[in-house]
Amino acid sequence: MFTSEEPTRFGVGCVGSRSLCGSLSADDLCRLRDADDHWFDHVRREAGCHGELSSVRLPDGYYSAFVELHIEQGPRLEAAGVPIGVVTAIAAPAALRVVIDGRGGHAGGVLMPDRRDALCTAAEAILAVEAAARGSGSPDTVATTGGCRVYPNAVNSIPSRVVLEIDIRDVNRESRDRAVAAIRSAVAAIAQRRNCTAVVEILHSDPPAAMAPAVVAAIESACRMLQLNCQRMVSRAYHDSLFMAQRFPTGMIFIPCRRGVSHHPDEFAEPEAIRRGVEVLAQTLAELAT
Amino acid sequence: MFTSEEPTRFGVGCVGSRSLCGSLSADDLCRLRDADDHWFDHVRREAGCHGELSSVRLPDGYYSAFVELHIEQGPRLEAAGVPIGVVTAIAAPAALRVVIDGRGGHAGGVLMPDRRDALCTAAEAILAVEAAARGSGSPDTVATTGGCRVYPNAVNSIPSRVVLEIDIRDVNRESRDRAVAAIRSAVAAIAQRRNCTAVVEILHSDPPAAMAPAVVAAIESACRMLQLNCQRMVSRAYHDSLFMAQRFPTGMIFIPCRRGVSHHPDEFAEPEAIRRGVEVLAQTLAELAT
Repeated sequence: MFTSEEPTRFGVGCVGSRSLCGSLSADDLCRLRDADDHWFDHVRREAGCHGELSSVRLPDGYYSAFVELHIEQGPRLEAAGVPIGVVTAIAAPAALRVVIDGRGGHAGGVLMPDRRDALCTAAEAILAVEAAARGSGSPDTVATTGGCRVYPNAVNSIPSRVVLEIDIRDVNRESRDRAVAAIRSAVAAIAQRRNCTAVVEILHSDPPAAMAPAVVAAIESACRMLQLNCQRMVSRAYHDSLFMAQRFPTGMIFIPCRRGVSHHPDEFAEPEAIRRGVEVLAQTLAELAT
Repeated sequence: MFTSEEPTRFGVGCVGSRSLCGSLSADDLCRLRDADDHWFDHVRREAGCHGELSSVRLPDGYYSAFVELHIEQGPRLEAAGVPIGVVTAIAAPAALRVVIDGRGGHAGGVLMPDRRDALCTAAEAILAVEAAARGSGSPDTVATTGGCRVYPNAVNSIPSRVVLEIDIRDVNRESRDRAVAAIRSAVAAIAQRRNCTAVVEILHSDPPAAMAPAVVAAIESACRMLQLNCQRMVSRAYHDSLFMAQRFPTGMIFIPCRRGVSHHPDEFAEPEAIRRGVEVLAQTLAELAT
């Protein structure tokens, strides 16, 4: 269990595992701030975490292996009726923040040809993000404009600024980086045509992680021992294991979830599926420990 | 001076003048709530306004005339070098709220063809709003998506819901209503194609207001008396006078503002321009009072 795997309050997920593995340094952590300009270092102290950030990174060789149990967050195991997925690689995620500045004004007073509407520019950018994923040449590329904040966000004011947060992933780094490049060039062209400015910041851009063959083999051996079917698969979602894999031999066990829904109140896994996952985890750890 | 002319916290501006004129009844006011489900009636009591809502409406004949002084909120007086604008009509505003529901999910886990992304649907709707204004056949039609709220608004989650607030105006009611109809039909078609739902609610749809000829004549006479040039013009922005005009003979005096900017921190009018406006207002009231 790591802290802050999902929350993106500070623009980056997996703050706990990134810090333990050293992919975020103490200095990086001190530069993080949220949308309301609260600094990470202040917020964590207020939450009662008082240790030295420079002591968080784990020493080399601290773990001989690391295994994570998770729901699939996709529909494939449920559809195939297979109780266990064995992850072979985790997709490479990148995240962008795009700040679009136009010119505000009264929604009634400024005629259409005189406008530099930041939200209309953002709307074209959002569609360009979708098109970049669909046109990457890889069916595995996904791109999502998940965050969109509009200023001043009043019905009678032309939007002067929009901040978009975009997530782009693929199991293949080249396909993903092609999509990122396509998004950057489309956003620049849209902003120029609409007489707005767009500043693109890369929040993070992580390499994909291959799981350790010895850990994959141990999970498959545990499934055979427990007489559970399993199938190899890639993880399109990213996990703390992406960062642990940079430092330690790592593997992941997936269990089915209902209709692939995740990050949503409807997320659900059967108690029986969870029980099987825990048994496979325990047996895998036992095999790795001997 | 009226309360709550600009704020759209409760989805409708000019709450004070609408109530004084009876276009919002006490029952209507009790049905208003904000985005956080705070009720208008509760909020106004907390702010120290304890009167009976049913006693707010003014009696017939309460004023013999009503005159409002305002910045133009447009660039025409400044560009023409004319110190006073005499308003002959106020454009007819309408406001829509569109609630778009798609299906949320993990930004990494759901492949592009399986998505029902509420924000991509909203992006097309925002561009359709702009196109409806540009294509209305009237250069005076303006349409603005000023409000856009995204749920859950996290970089790693596919947006499941977007709420748009849209403002549409014209000095000609038919042109405006054509634009409203075009927006409604475009939003329905976009949502259907993208397998989302879109519910369109009309927040308000007011008729344009003609200013009273006697008040217009009094303002022009005041300008002659003070040896100030003036020009007749329509107001594209709406004002408390839109509602006062439903009940009392009404007129408006405009003064120039810098580059037409309004509803923005850069809004600015010269002190000298304000002084001239106040003199015209005083002289107009003196003429109407005799």
